[in-house]
Amino acid sequence: MSFLALNLLNSGVPFSMVCAVIGLVFAFLLIAIVARASAGNERMREISAAVQEGAKAYLNRQVVTISAIAIVIFGLLFFFKDHPTAVGFLIGSFCSLTAGFIGMRIAVIANVRTTQAAATSTTSALRMAFNGGAVTGLLVVGLALLSVSIFYVFADRMVGHDMAVRSLVGLALGASLISVFARLGGGIYTKAADVGADLVGKIEQGFEEDDPRNPATIADNVGDNVGDCAGMAADVFETYAVSLIGAILVGALTLAGNPAAIVYPFVLGGISVLGAICGVLFVNVAKLKPAATLMGGVLTSAIISAILFWPATHYLFPSGITAAGVARTPTQLYFASVIGLVMTAVVVAITNYYTSMRYSPVQKIARASETGHATNIIAGLAVGQHATALPVGFIGIAILLSFHFAGLYGIAIAVMSMLSMAGIIISLDSFGPITDNAGGIAVMSNLPKEVRTVTDQLDAVGNTMKAVTKGYAIASAGLAALVLFGSYVEELKAHVTRNGEPFTFQFSLTEPKVIIGLFLGGLLPFIFTAFSMDAVGKAAGAVVREVRRQLQAKPGILTGQDTPEYGTCVDIVTKAALREMIIPALLPIVFVVATAIIKPLGPVVLGGLLVGTIVTGLFVAIAMTSGGGAWDNAKKFIEEGNLGGKGSFAHQASVTGDTVGDPYKDTAGPAINPMIKVANIVAILIIPIFF
Amino acid sequence: MSFLALNLLNSGVPFSMVCAVIGLVFAFLLIAIVARASAGNERMREISAAVQEGAKAYLNRQVVTISAIAIVIFGLLFFFKDHPTAVGFLIGSFCSLTAGFIGMRIAVIANVRTTQAAATSTTSALRMAFNGGAVTGLLVVGLALLSVSIFYVFADRMVGHDMAVRSLVGLALGASLISVFARLGGGIYTKAADVGADLVGKIEQGFEEDDPRNPATIADNVGDNVGDCAGMAADVFETYAVSLIGAILVGALTLAGNPAAIVYPFVLGGISVLGAICGVLFVNVAKLKPAATLMGGVLTSAIISAILFWPATHYLFPSGITAAGVARTPTQLYFASVIGLVMTAVVVAITNYYTSMRYSPVQKIARASETGHATNIIAGLAVGQHATALPVGFIGIAILLSFHFAGLYGIAIAVMSMLSMAGIIISLDSFGPITDNAGGIAVMSNLPKEVRTVTDQLDAVGNTMKAVTKGYAIASAGLAALVLFGSYVEELKAHVTRNGEPFTFQFSLTEPKVIIGLFLGGLLPFIFTAFSMDAVGKAAGAVVREVRRQLQAKPGILTGQDTPEYGTCVDIVTKAALREMIIPALLPIVFVVATAIIKPLGPVVLGGLLVGTIVTGLFVAIAMTSGGGAWDNAKKFIEEGNLGGKGSFAHQASVTGDTVGDPYKDTAGPAINPMIKVANIVAILIIPIFF
Repeated sequence: MSFLALNLLNSGVPFSMVCAVIGLVFAFLLIAIVARASAGNERMREISAAVQEGAKAYLNRQVVTISAIAIVIFGLLFFFKDHPTAVGFLIGSFCSLTAGFIGMRIAVIANVRTTQAAATSTTSALRMAFNGGAVTGLLVVGLALLSVSIFYVFADRMVGHDMAVRSLVGLALGASLISVFARLGGGIYTKAADVGADLVGKIEQGFEEDDPRNPATIADNVGDNVGDCAGMAADVFETYAVSLIGAILVGALTLAGNPAAIVYPFVLGGISVLGAICGVLFVNVAKLKPAATLMGGVLTSAIISAILFWPATHYLFPSGITAAGVARTPTQLYFASVIGLVMTAVVVAITNYYTSMRYSPVQKIARASETGHATNIIAGLAVGQHATALPVGFIGIAILLSFHFAGLYGIAIAVMSMLSMAGIIISLDSFGPITDNAGGIAVMSNLPKEVRTVTDQLDAVGNTMKAVTKGYAIASAGLAALVLFGSYVEELKAHVTRNGEPFTFQFSLTEPKVIIGLFLGGLLPFIFTAFSMDAVGKAAGAVVREVRRQLQAKPGILTGQDTPEYGTCVDIVTKAALREMIIPALLPIVFVVATAIIKPLGPVVLGGLLVGTIVTGLFVAIAMTSGGGAWDNAKKFIEEGNLGGKGSFAHQASVTGDTVGDPYKDTAGPAINPMIKVANIVAILIIPIFF
Repeated sequence: MSFLALNLLNSGVPFSMVCAVIGLVFAFLLIAIVARASAGNERMREISAAVQEGAKAYLNRQVVTISAIAIVIFGLLFFFKDHPTAVGFLIGSFCSLTAGFIGMRIAVIANVRTTQAAATSTTSALRMAFNGGAVTGLLVVGLALLSVSIFYVFADRMVGHDMAVRSLVGLALGASLISVFARLGGGIYTKAADVGADLVGKIEQGFEEDDPRNPATIADNVGDNVGDCAGMAADVFETYAVSLIGAILVGALTLAGNPAAIVYPFVLGGISVLGAICGVLFVNVAKLKPAATLMGGVLTSAIISAILFWPATHYLFPSGITAAGVARTPTQLYFASVIGLVMTAVVVAITNYYTSMRYSPVQKIARASETGHATNIIAGLAVGQHATALPVGFIGIAILLSFHFAGLYGIAIAVMSMLSMAGIIISLDSFGPITDNAGGIAVMSNLPKEVRTVTDQLDAVGNTMKAVTKGYAIASAGLAALVLFGSYVEELKAHVTRNGEPFTFQFSLTEPKVIIGLFLGGLLPFIFTAFSMDAVGKAAGAVVREVRRQLQAKPGILTGQDTPEYGTCVDIVTKAALREMIIPALLPIVFVVATAIIKPLGPVVLGGLLVGTIVTGLFVAIAMTSGGGAWDNAKKFIEEGNLGGKGSFAHQASVTGDTVGDPYKDTAGPAINPMIKVANIVAILIIPIFF
């Protein structure tokens, strides 16, 4: 081993910490830039403050509800598992909540400034919204990298190497569980408000989006912040942390002899923070069309990472490793890491095709709207399902190749390198809700129509970006969950003995228990999303009734003489979201623990369950997020003046599609991602308790 | 072995033939009874004749299209496989087509007579429609039992026992492939016409269902016959034949030493024909409410079968068998067969709950309609997904128990006994389209409103029955496909050698190739249904444009002065259905053969693919058929005067839901059933060619 390699081995984790800190510093610089910009006139600040207040009030109540559940689980881990795992759980939970708060805070600062910037030029609005998103991106990634590495370093010193690695699973559980709640609670909130506002506002009353006469309009804008911003930030924190931990776990379980296997994922993460910063700089200097500028940022980031991964891999593994009994060269490991970067690009391109209004799928939905509500829905459902084919095909290829290069560890590396792109990818994702809110503020403040035109144009790009990042999140989640399933099998092997001998379970498809597990696991995403959609439907119905009541009680609202009571709508949605998120969020835990406890089921059925959840979860999530994005942009396509434009019969039908797509793409679909991982992590954690 | 047992062993297959013939004779008696009834006035006969003509014309063209494909496959089997298999394929194809024709012919005889009977009383209309359905049921089951047993007996004599069993797979392929085409072609036809007619007729023009001024109304009624009757009959023929063949195959592969293992499935089938006849008699004498009468028929049939299975099992297996290395008592085998009967009842009860307007799921959708189109859709999608939980849970229990009782053979026996109920179950299924058509004839012939009220009431029961039988078909298909997957593994074991030694493939979930297979297989139902829904959307759009054109060109149609050109709509749908069915129907074959041929994939990936298709296929199919049925009845619930009744805002929204549900429940969902089996059968057939 050369001097350099030894050096990087010892300094690999600190290196990633330094990169994380650089990312955080850069994020604070960006905040300064964003905050320095004008927040517009008084009316704009007022509205922004109202939205911010609603969002803060909701998140505070969400924290109380989630904390109650988290404390129970902390107690269970503390008494029935071990203390380090329980502490890890606490840290994971806390950081995931923090990520959500960051996402929300930054968004409310950025959106009103984006409105103001839109009055100047498209480019400055684009940069303002993007920089707001980039702050969240860099903060979330920095937080994830820093929390995992600090916890790992401390735990390593205090309770030893093995225990440190094991207790990281606690951190992963904390991150994932909070993320399910945040995704669901925020998702139910945002879509109940959105659907409720649209149903009465657009369809019954013919209001424009964000018409200040609509009593649900503030709730709708609050929703963008608590769902799309806070929920998404918690989600990506989770995905990042779990992928990193998954890679460490696999490295420790299958390559115990080589400490570099644990350092490598940290180093990949650290490098990509630098890549993400370059990507952000690119967006801030490029003079291209909006979509091209954003894509250029992603590409820059990927290329920088790909270049820096090469020396890092060779320094860490100068003579390669032996994985799954076969010697692997450093170049093979490098290829595994590049697969993750390529997969990011591929998934982004595919989702873009299915959800951008420039291509045929969205236009097909738009044309189907001409023959009515039902044909719009049928077309949208079909597009969502079609959109599963290519991502799943490429995931298959990625599994085959990365496994070929370095066994299960190769898959773990590919996932980690895919997730290392999260910094720049979140910047894109946040872009959507920020521009959406910016448009809302423009309309509610009666700014000139041109401002809204700019924000609308950016919003359409934002819709695609949101769909793209969801495709990215779920594809990476599918791979990360497979890595976790691999860890489950290894843990089981390491832990279970029969008659004093180590015992290896078989998970063969010819075993009925495996099939039953696949069925049970396959069921989980179906009923999880069913509960989520029910929740949105119920809460939205309550909003509709409230809006109708207000419009009837105060007819002056319609003429602008009376002001609606925005607060009651905010209150109704807040309560409904918190109440409705509990059952679906606990489903994965209940399924896994019940399968472990119920006698004729047990570890083999549980293994099948984990894989079954991954398989159907992937399809359901992609179909929902892509279908929802396509519906949304089909409506935007018509609103641009195609097929009769706004107010036409086709437009009405497209609004129905958009409304159905809302809970698909922003509540049920994206929540599958952390849900799959909660199931897998809980399974790993309960092995020593039940088996 | 006792004398009786020996005797039944030799006479078991002939016994089933005799039962089949008894069933056929009883069916002809029923035809005589149905045909003797009055076919109503001249106008009714005219309409009935127009529908019949359209249906015949479509089926004839469908036969031509399918035959072309069947001949190619016959040629491939003849030259690359063996002659008996090719002949089996031909027989399976021919019988499946015949079953479709029977279903259609009987329905068009029964529907006009049901209209006429509805003028007398609900009970006589119920019996007329049910007897029409029962004819199809008994003919299809008789045909399936007879064709498989005759082919088996002849092949056994001519090419020997082993080859006879193997070539039965050819018969299964013929049945399944034709059934996919019939289900898809008929399903696209019926729903394109239905959706097209509804979109312009109900939503744009405010026509009632089956208003003779609607140019698409004849096409709509033709659709009921070619889709719901012909398609369903071919489908159930397939399910029955494949379950029987699957059981024989597993018996031959895993219990080669015991000839009774092959005779047993035949005997179960034969007995249940007698049970079905008793069930039909019950319906014809019972004086209960419609739904209770029909359920009573099913129960009667199940009880008779359960009683007769006991002596048959003990006579055939006086000393039990040894399955999967464990000795099994005859009582254990009997329990496996009873599981199939119980599963039928359970699935019927569950689907009934989710799709009958008496229970909360349908009423929830109806209430969601009050807040608009989108909330109706969201609620319906959620109900469909919820509806997957219980059936899948019970399928898991059935697998666990029947495997516990007699290994893979136990599962095969449970499936066969479940399918043995097909005779009575089809009677229920056909009931729906017959009453639907009867109502159409009543409206088009301007019969008094009371007649339509009777047929509407029966139609609502029919909707639930249709959903129930689809739940039954798909649940049994899931189990049957698992049996086929078991046969795939056994065939592979029997056939593949490495270095001259027999080689056993492992299908472990820890093997990436299995995971990739699961993903690929999981994809199949998603894109299969996406293509199917696209097809309906496209064809329906063409109908909408044609109807709009006619109403514009001849404004006299609206006032009743001009007659619409029904023929052009029939023609448009016929062409579209035949064109659009090809790609999705060939998907399973393409997937399986491509996986076998492409180098890095091969037999292990293919095994994963087969299971993946079963897992997601089951969920998608149940969600679609139950959701569709629930949407339909939510509309009926509102039309009965609830929540504002006909013409209300809620009603309009419920029509949208019904329309979306149409391709779900009658095109895409039910076609998954034969599709899954085509994939499994093709995989078994190509083993000696590619591996």
